[in-house]
Amino acid sequence: MAAMIELIQGGGVTSAKGFKAGGTYAGLKTPSEGILDLGIILSDDPATIAAVFTSNKVVSPSVTLSRKRAKKGTGRAVVANSGCANCAVGAQGLKDATEMAALAASHVDVAPEDVLVCSTGMIGVELPMALIRQNLGNIKLDGKGGNDFARSIMTTDSHPKQFAASVEISGKKVTIGGAAKGAGMIHPNMATMLGFVTTDADLDPAYAQTALKQAVDDSFNMIDVDGDQSTNDTVILMANGARGGTKIAGGADGAAFQEALTYVCQALAKELVRDAEGAQRLIEVVVDGAKAKKDARLAARSVAASLLVKTMVHGRDPNWGRIMMAVGKSGANLDESKIDIYVNGIQIVHNGISIPYSRDAVVSSMSGDNVTFQITLNQGKESATAWGCDLTEAYIIENSAYST
Amino acid sequence: MAAMIELIQGGGVTSAKGFKAGGTYAGLKTPSEGILDLGIILSDDPATIAAVFTSNKVVSPSVTLSRKRAKKGTGRAVVANSGCANCAVGAQGLKDATEMAALAASHVDVAPEDVLVCSTGMIGVELPMALIRQNLGNIKLDGKGGNDFARSIMTTDSHPKQFAASVEISGKKVTIGGAAKGAGMIHPNMATMLGFVTTDADLDPAYAQTALKQAVDDSFNMIDVDGDQSTNDTVILMANGARGGTKIAGGADGAAFQEALTYVCQALAKELVRDAEGAQRLIEVVVDGAKAKKDARLAARSVAASLLVKTMVHGRDPNWGRIMMAVGKSGANLDESKIDIYVNGIQIVHNGISIPYSRDAVVSSMSGDNVTFQITLNQGKESATAWGCDLTEAYIIENSAYST
Repeated sequence: MAAMIELIQGGGVTSAKGFKAGGTYAGLKTPSEGILDLGIILSDDPATIAAVFTSNKVVSPSVTLSRKRAKKGTGRAVVANSGCANCAVGAQGLKDATEMAALAASHVDVAPEDVLVCSTGMIGVELPMALIRQNLGNIKLDGKGGNDFARSIMTTDSHPKQFAASVEISGKKVTIGGAAKGAGMIHPNMATMLGFVTTDADLDPAYAQTALKQAVDDSFNMIDVDGDQSTNDTVILMANGARGGTKIAGGADGAAFQEALTYVCQALAKELVRDAEGAQRLIEVVVDGAKAKKDARLAARSVAASLLVKTMVHGRDPNWGRIMMAVGKSGANLDESKIDIYVNGIQIVHNGISIPYSRDAVVSSMSGDNVTFQITLNQGKESATAWGCDLTEAYIIENSAYST
Repeated sequence: MAAMIELIQGGGVTSAKGFKAGGTYAGLKTPSEGILDLGIILSDDPATIAAVFTSNKVVSPSVTLSRKRAKKGTGRAVVANSGCANCAVGAQGLKDATEMAALAASHVDVAPEDVLVCSTGMIGVELPMALIRQNLGNIKLDGKGGNDFARSIMTTDSHPKQFAASVEISGKKVTIGGAAKGAGMIHPNMATMLGFVTTDADLDPAYAQTALKQAVDDSFNMIDVDGDQSTNDTVILMANGARGGTKIAGGADGAAFQEALTYVCQALAKELVRDAEGAQRLIEVVVDGAKAKKDARLAARSVAASLLVKTMVHGRDPNWGRIMMAVGKSGANLDESKIDIYVNGIQIVHNGISIPYSRDAVVSSMSGDNVTFQITLNQGKESATAWGCDLTEAYIIENSAYST
């Protein structure tokens, strides 16, 4: 049975009970009106912590520290900065991450080991700790600070990304809220992508880790902007149980929470793709009829990640041969002669061959903000959805002149 | 000992003794002055055949047929068309590939099963066999037809790609010549990429297959334009032994031939990258000091394939954090704190950290047609080289409007 999920308008990481957040400008990014670059999320009470990190072998010491601290499964706060990835800076990186967490711990009066740390921005330059020491104390935390926190983690994002929803679990309404930042380098397996999810549900730590992993696999790991993976990607879930009710550890309650958690993560992930550097259109790729879930995931991600698909969407060109090519190279089990393809619901390929379709209608349907490709493999019952964006001249221009 | 390899100016698939080739215009591509779209290479005598094909699961029936015929290890001719990939057209595709090979066999008077067939161009439309039947007979084959053949396989290539070299093996000079076409969709594991190599050396069939695989792994499989892989990629080697001498099956002779074969394949591969859609600069990525060859190959290809690296080269920006990111995500064994990076010979990173370097000098060195990144892992003695091109606005423009 599908859980009753309700969207909370304007919600974010402080929508759930018992969370405060805030942000300040510490001078890590070029100054402009209203800019923020350093933020904190605090749980009033000890929270269950789950986290998922980048698979890149070069990682920021901020990731190294948070990975270690997330292992104990509980914590109180997260401090995050934008403007500097604190990566590829040698031994200094871990010292700085540790100090930044300690400064935050002292500011919100919790133990240092209860604070996780995230960084995003340029690789190869040290965190300007003097600025962080000077300005971290300016962060004012309150129950309406979710928006400031979301703004403080932005890099090339054009706007803060936040989302919250409530779901009834065994008669008790719990809230799940999140903030994320993305833009360039977004790829399955995570990339310069930070995500923070808070909830007032009471979660068993092992369940929380499994549920977060599942939600990330079906959301952040199914989006693609440019195929690159960052050194800093992190998604952190904090569950403080402030809403009361029984501890969720699986079963029907676990399934309902999972559904709502995935919903929030997918909403954030889609928003990241939609706001990717230079993107004009969101591409949703649905692969169904797959023999195994793995096949569906591989095929959907391959299509969403293909540059030739991304450019054809930019050009509103239903060049379905490129979709066939991308499905074929994905490694998914398939039989070419059974593949059906639909563009925005209009079927254009049946049994692997083009059927007569109204090209004008398809091109016209591709002019909107969203383009959906449905690829039916007719091999089984599994499905998966991936999201990508079109590739435009603006992406090239933006990324040709990032650090100069 | 390095083999003595001599470049043959203006050489191609008819440089080796005993090969004829030619091309004609059959009407498969939009007409323009001097355009060709159908070509044949013929060996005067039965030749040893080796071939390497795409790893895409959706393949053109032209590939299916050639794969089968290449297995017997001998053959006489290859017929190739551009303008139509003969892919994703159902059962008709294999009939058409078989007929096209039969028409060519009849034209050059050899057995149909001694003819391989290659197609490149749009996916999802049937080969216009009426045009091929009508025009294939116009192909005039002679010992100077290499250039016409190279022109007949072009799609978005701006010019034909040919190369030939000679090498002395046990006192006998043998010639290796090649033609290739590339442009978009080029990626490791091969992509809309056709390559044809002819030689008058006498090759043992098993040796020929191993040598071609090795040469392709070090050349065509180390280039990247956009990460996509085509349904039609094929590299075919024909060795007719017309120059005499003993059969090469390995040993010192095999090593010398391998070196020359790899040289010709690398020359063709680099030319494909240089002429890729929208490309302005060739990027050469040398990874050395790797523990295993596999690590070096993974890291080199990952850097050459990264969009963020490609765009930074377009912007002449030594944003080495992106190189670290690409090396890190490659899966190669590495220790971040041992990595050294050089841009066009200028060291900018030592032990994983930026060193003081003249930014102006590096940016200025990145203004040429070639940019070399050397990444030293300091983990072992293995190395590999990959080639890519910068990603420009022109790529987007070209690929947003391919079939419209």
